[in-house]
Amino acid sequence: MFLLMTPQFDYKTPLEPYLPHSKPSISTSLPFITLTYAQSLDSKISAGKNIRTALSHEETKEMTHYLRLHHAGIMIGCQTAMCDDPGLNCKLDFDKSPRPIIIDPSGKWKFNGKGKMYQFFLKKQGKPPIVVLSSNTFYNDKKFTKQDYVEYCVVEGSPTDNNRLDWNSIFQKLYKDFHLRSIMVEGGGFVINDLLSAHAVNNLINSLIITIAPVYLGNKGVTVSPYNGRIDLKDVKWFTGTRDSVMCSRIG
Amino acid sequence: MFLLMTPQFDYKTPLEPYLPHSKPSISTSLPFITLTYAQSLDSKISAGKNIRTALSHEETKEMTHYLRLHHAGIMIGCQTAMCDDPGLNCKLDFDKSPRPIIIDPSGKWKFNGKGKMYQFFLKKQGKPPIVVLSSNTFYNDKKFTKQDYVEYCVVEGSPTDNNRLDWNSIFQKLYKDFHLRSIMVEGGGFVINDLLSAHAVNNLINSLIITIAPVYLGNKGVTVSPYNGRIDLKDVKWFTGTRDSVMCSRIG
Repeated sequence: MFLLMTPQFDYKTPLEPYLPHSKPSISTSLPFITLTYAQSLDSKISAGKNIRTALSHEETKEMTHYLRLHHAGIMIGCQTAMCDDPGLNCKLDFDKSPRPIIIDPSGKWKFNGKGKMYQFFLKKQGKPPIVVLSSNTFYNDKKFTKQDYVEYCVVEGSPTDNNRLDWNSIFQKLYKDFHLRSIMVEGGGFVINDLLSAHAVNNLINSLIITIAPVYLGNKGVTVSPYNGRIDLKDVKWFTGTRDSVMCSRIG
Repeated sequence: MFLLMTPQFDYKTPLEPYLPHSKPSISTSLPFITLTYAQSLDSKISAGKNIRTALSHEETKEMTHYLRLHHAGIMIGCQTAMCDDPGLNCKLDFDKSPRPIIIDPSGKWKFNGKGKMYQFFLKKQGKPPIVVLSSNTFYNDKKFTKQDYVEYCVVEGSPTDNNRLDWNSIFQKLYKDFHLRSIMVEGGGFVINDLLSAHAVNNLINSLIITIAPVYLGNKGVTVSPYNGRIDLKDVKWFTGTRDSVMCSRIG
């Protein structure tokens, strides 16, 4: 296991105040939301659409598993699920792996198969996923069939690709129907930008934990940047590993 | 003077190995080039075209004047000169102010007037500028007239806005004809992106010093990102002030 390395990079102390248990959401209907991702200096999370790009250093990858230990759910978009094939489990303690949550309005993603998430689930090293699906797909799409082991969080609306998501409804349903009290949102570009842009209105994000790798990926890359203009951050703390810098904050 | 504040933010020690005197350019025809700018998390240097945006904390502004003390020239594009009206002098020691260099192929920018650069020059608190002009403007544009106190660095080519600049020629001329042994390039978006993109071919940039402010400016902002894809950095060092983080590096 890669986690037996000496932890020369102390991420636990600086992360502490930003974890769900340190400052639980005061809401009784919404989970604690942590938005967390790794970016290049030029704010790219990958070198291009559907290109999996290694960005963060091994030690910041370890930090990601520590964050997973502290969250009940881990959310990504279906493009990221299909392109990156992430395991989304917690290698520090398989039993404490978060529930994977796939934003997949039109039901394109398949759980069953050779993917890591399914393989981890079979080996009891990861949990089965929740798919966030549009009501239109669930009730009206005759090609849609429920997948084994998958639970569905059905939200109002049509699965148009450019549609903005109703984050408030999604998080409320995940809290009420699936009892998820904390969720980390990991990517990809559409999910991050849509959530950051919705935040300005809905005040949904509780913690922001961003790893910055000292590299440019260039202007063909997938960018993180909100649609609505300026967002100021507060309670900012930076800490640095061997190569990457990590910024923790709340949104002001 | 704002520089009498107690320097709680020690930028001098970490900056030292990245300054021109610490590692002079081994070239006998090119100046030592430092690319330095302040960006948001989402890699924007301003909230929009021709919008002057305050990004960096007071203490990182002070660091900028320390960098100016250590460079013979300071370069910006004409759009930035016209929109931001920067003084480009060194408030730590007026006599050691760098020579302002304005990239202005078609000769749009005016030195003489109410601008800070001219006012500092009149008060002997800053040096007179060098304008980098295209040969086509210099020899063929009948509307072009030389400005008082301005020196011209004339380079081959036409001043089409979307033209890539011949950085090698520009820096060679500034070294040979103006005896500038070190230049810091400060902005704006076109100049930074064009130089970063040219770097991949020409290996022009010696040090990179980037301040990151914990704020998103949104996708209408002016982005820094090279045209040519991935650029890896080496000898990376991060240090953190009250609010901003600074990354120093060389290009790998």
